[in-house]
Amino acid sequence: MAKKDPWRIGVAGLGTVGAGLLNLLSERPRFAPTGDQLSVTGVSARSRSRPRPFDISNLPWFDDPVALAASTDNDLFVELIGGSDGPAKVAVETALKAGKPVVTANKALIAEHGQELAALAEQHGAPLLFEAAVMGGTPAVKMLREAMVGDEVEAVAGILNGTCNYILTEMEASGRDFAEVLAEAQRLGYAEADPTMDVGGFDAAHKITILAALAFGCAPTYAAAEVDGIDQVELLDIRLAKQLEYRIKLVASAVKSASGVSVTVHPALVPLDHPLAGAGGPLNALFIHGRKIGRIFIQGPGAGAGPTAAAVAADIADVIAGASRPVFQAPAKSLKPFAPVVARRQVGRAYVRLLVKDQPGVIAAVSETLAEAGVSIDSFLQKPVENAGGVPIVLTTHDAREDVIGEAVRRMALLPAVTQPPRMIRIARI
Amino acid sequence: MAKKDPWRIGVAGLGTVGAGLLNLLSERPRFAPTGDQLSVTGVSARSRSRPRPFDISNLPWFDDPVALAASTDNDLFVELIGGSDGPAKVAVETALKAGKPVVTANKALIAEHGQELAALAEQHGAPLLFEAAVMGGTPAVKMLREAMVGDEVEAVAGILNGTCNYILTEMEASGRDFAEVLAEAQRLGYAEADPTMDVGGFDAAHKITILAALAFGCAPTYAAAEVDGIDQVELLDIRLAKQLEYRIKLVASAVKSASGVSVTVHPALVPLDHPLAGAGGPLNALFIHGRKIGRIFIQGPGAGAGPTAAAVAADIADVIAGASRPVFQAPAKSLKPFAPVVARRQVGRAYVRLLVKDQPGVIAAVSETLAEAGVSIDSFLQKPVENAGGVPIVLTTHDAREDVIGEAVRRMALLPAVTQPPRMIRIARI
Repeated sequence: MAKKDPWRIGVAGLGTVGAGLLNLLSERPRFAPTGDQLSVTGVSARSRSRPRPFDISNLPWFDDPVALAASTDNDLFVELIGGSDGPAKVAVETALKAGKPVVTANKALIAEHGQELAALAEQHGAPLLFEAAVMGGTPAVKMLREAMVGDEVEAVAGILNGTCNYILTEMEASGRDFAEVLAEAQRLGYAEADPTMDVGGFDAAHKITILAALAFGCAPTYAAAEVDGIDQVELLDIRLAKQLEYRIKLVASAVKSASGVSVTVHPALVPLDHPLAGAGGPLNALFIHGRKIGRIFIQGPGAGAGPTAAAVAADIADVIAGASRPVFQAPAKSLKPFAPVVARRQVGRAYVRLLVKDQPGVIAAVSETLAEAGVSIDSFLQKPVENAGGVPIVLTTHDAREDVIGEAVRRMALLPAVTQPPRMIRIARI
Repeated sequence: MAKKDPWRIGVAGLGTVGAGLLNLLSERPRFAPTGDQLSVTGVSARSRSRPRPFDISNLPWFDDPVALAASTDNDLFVELIGGSDGPAKVAVETALKAGKPVVTANKALIAEHGQELAALAEQHGAPLLFEAAVMGGTPAVKMLREAMVGDEVEAVAGILNGTCNYILTEMEASGRDFAEVLAEAQRLGYAEADPTMDVGGFDAAHKITILAALAFGCAPTYAAAEVDGIDQVELLDIRLAKQLEYRIKLVASAVKSASGVSVTVHPALVPLDHPLAGAGGPLNALFIHGRKIGRIFIQGPGAGAGPTAAAVAADIADVIAGASRPVFQAPAKSLKPFAPVVARRQVGRAYVRLLVKDQPGVIAAVSETLAEAGVSIDSFLQKPVENAGGVPIVLTTHDAREDVIGEAVRRMALLPAVTQPPRMIRIARI
């Protein structure tokens, strides 16, 4: 990068992260190790007059973020609007086309349009950085993008959505059900009014899509992710899993094998003594498994104004340092999409919970169904629980193909003594 | 950096890490995301004829690493010789003076001469990178140097020496004492013939000195570190600590306060449910505490050919990417040494273990000694243990100044019923 003094920053989007960034830049305008001065020379948001915890009256205002992206009054464009399409995308494209470096926290945009934007960035010689898009202040993107290049990454897996992790932690701690804890999280501002992106697993899917692209040198391929959220996780299963020494987490994972890449987000049982089980509340956590390096674990805050703004700031410092790298792990035009491996053909262990009538022969019938499918049982637990609409039976399987277990579970549902559709939850392979 | 094709690499030092690097470069000569080709055009080591797991007969040989550093036949110099002075230092200086980028795994060199070398690097416009110097394949240096610049780091603390961590883990698991486990570790090649650098805490002190410099924007100031090793850790204390729900770890920490920086390495008690307690065997682990970001935890392999070579390779890729940053967090000439805070004037909790004669009044005398010093007791444990040369009494204190606790412990040693000098171990504040 040519030396600029000061670096003039345009910030589009003045929500939590935008506020954190303006605060950081006003406190430490020379935070970059190069000593360059930074100055905000333009802001844009949906409403100029909305009450904010900081004064924007002295900052040049743009009604249209695209106009801010195009303005020659800034040298670097920070996109904190969000959303995979609409003004965020047009603004980022506009900045890149002008050869202007872009820093964004927008996971949906990068997961869904990353390759196209990377191509634009490389064509115009403009860096496109997105550390804050994944794990907030915890530098997962930099680790995979830069620190692991000497290795071949085989898998990444972890907890990437703080809202879900908070809800699951609270359900276990307070004994309240999903709906009740979600409602509280919404009141406290930890969950959105429309919580679908978070609790449906889509936010975590955006993030693991980006990490998979960086880990395996592919184009981000959001459409290939298999996604299941936490809205069907019952308190009963959280309790029963704990008796088996597991904790239910929303696990996002990307695994490379000879046949391709599997990217999944789903609730999974994690052993209580596993580091992922220890990451409670809004924490995020990630394992990276490299062929040479082995396993690296990283844990930290996945959201919040301070951490996320600090991640945006680290990207700004990287732009100033002026490294010249592809946006992903190879020039954008050469990136291939993931060759998706269908998760249900993969082998793993599962937790199966049934509610049954308390009558003779039930356990025999259940275990026979599994035996017929060739699935063997690892552990079995029957325990009376109040108000559960039946007696819960819980079992864990040994390794078996996921679709085979699924088919056996569907057959169990047809047994006369089974009172509700059985619940199957994967046991994490991490 | 000017584009070079291929990048010609000179490698000085062909031990474990050097072997791992040659292996990596021969397997993946275009591993860098920029796609540049890498080619080893010169090697140097103490002995050319020593048996090695790889063939060096086709690689240009230099008897003198300084000549390799000076040679115009390579564009980038990798220093894997080790040692804070001698040929490693002269070779690195020679390369930097020639404006040649240097990648090193040499923690002693950077901890003891980092500022001087950084000044040389910046004067000649040559990058000086040292990711592999700390935590092997786990990118602690990059995290502090690049990812945390948007925040103000207040403390870093962790397990930075895999040999010590392996020995402590084995002592607990096998019930053998320090000398026995050390001898085994030496047989297995996990500890050096002269283990002083590791078990004396000096290796960890080099590493935390580097991390402290990056965390707080100071010059590395090895002389300011207070160092205590694990050679005095007794099996008895490992067992008693566990009964109190603690594990003894060699904890390296650097803490910034209004009065300056405290850098220490010493055995410390860590709660069993703390992530550092879970990092067993040769693992390394680190907490980074930032004002905005909060706590980030990172864990991974701290040594080994594969992980460390991958870290060297990541630095090589960074040199190719061509970022222009100060070596530390500000231009070398402006770096100040740490203003050291004397650890013993700091406040903390402690574990104190005594061996006493089993006679009336002992507990009263011990607790009175602490009460006189104004130190209050948090927990107390008396338990008969075989062959211990007395009855062990263990107590943990509430917060008190370290020198005050130390003085009380010295007075306890004078009590007639106390049969051996009491042992005081800090309880980690992490």
